[in-house]
Amino acid sequence: MAVLVDNEPGVLARVIGLFSGRGYNIESLTVTEVDPDQNLSRITIITSGTPMILEQIKAQLGRLVPVHQVSDLTRLGPYVERELALVKVVGTGEKRVEALRIADIFKAEVVDAGLDHFVFEMHHRSEKVDAFIDLMKPLGMVDVSRTGVVAIARGSKGL
Amino acid sequence: MAVLVDNEPGVLARVIGLFSGRGYNIESLTVTEVDPDQNLSRITIITSGTPMILEQIKAQLGRLVPVHQVSDLTRLGPYVERELALVKVVGTGEKRVEALRIADIFKAEVVDAGLDHFVFEMHHRSEKVDAFIDLMKPLGMVDVSRTGVVAIARGSKGL
Repeated sequence: MAVLVDNEPGVLARVIGLFSGRGYNIESLTVTEVDPDQNLSRITIITSGTPMILEQIKAQLGRLVPVHQVSDLTRLGPYVERELALVKVVGTGEKRVEALRIADIFKAEVVDAGLDHFVFEMHHRSEKVDAFIDLMKPLGMVDVSRTGVVAIARGSKGL
Repeated sequence: MAVLVDNEPGVLARVIGLFSGRGYNIESLTVTEVDPDQNLSRITIITSGTPMILEQIKAQLGRLVPVHQVSDLTRLGPYVERELALVKVVGTGEKRVEALRIADIFKAEVVDAGLDHFVFEMHHRSEKVDAFIDLMKPLGMVDVSRTGVVAIARGSKGL
């Protein structure tokens, strides 16, 4: 679900408040400035629920004054989704070799390295990021930072 | 600033409420599940302010009951930051060629393509993502979705 809102203090709090107040679950949320000239922010929310609940959320978000547009990307047709994760793995010997081997398979890049650690950057669909993290856990993963999901509709139509 | 919190409904609303209630600016925010077993979420917030304001925010966040840890990454020493963007560009002819040329320079990948459009995936430091988007605007950019920034400290220390 992608929401285009005015970039004002308090807008994000109202959007989040709508979700938490009604007990709707937020699996992932990202918010960033889209266009500083137009003062617009884009909020991407991954939420779960029946189609009826999703329709309710969409209608309620649309009623919040500063919301310009609400799109349910899963309804609009095919879309591309991506997430990025930074993963720190500490270890030596065979575990270190194995971590590098898996990173290679997942096309993760090394963005920081020391004698006993790597920071990998990995980006793909969420499920693939999940799989990468699950594999890294037993290999000495000490920190992970994920962006959450962003999505964009396939084809030439704009938001 | 990285915040580790319990993954409960309402926690995100309280963290956001602290910022908006005091007029602190949120430039970018990401939240994702870190460890489903431990029921922990990680919130990364990019905020601006004097060192004094940052200290205040940190202290106030730390007092919120479900917050496990608050780290000001800019204070901890060197860190890696990354952001991911999906950028849709619609156009034909020379503009299309130019868009592909710039994508190549920025090592952006084509994740969706048609006769008159591309969706690029680009990831790097925020400033570089900014630069890429600025270059794509006059080439027919119709949609952009950014994850916001995630960060992780360099070196072998965990969060």
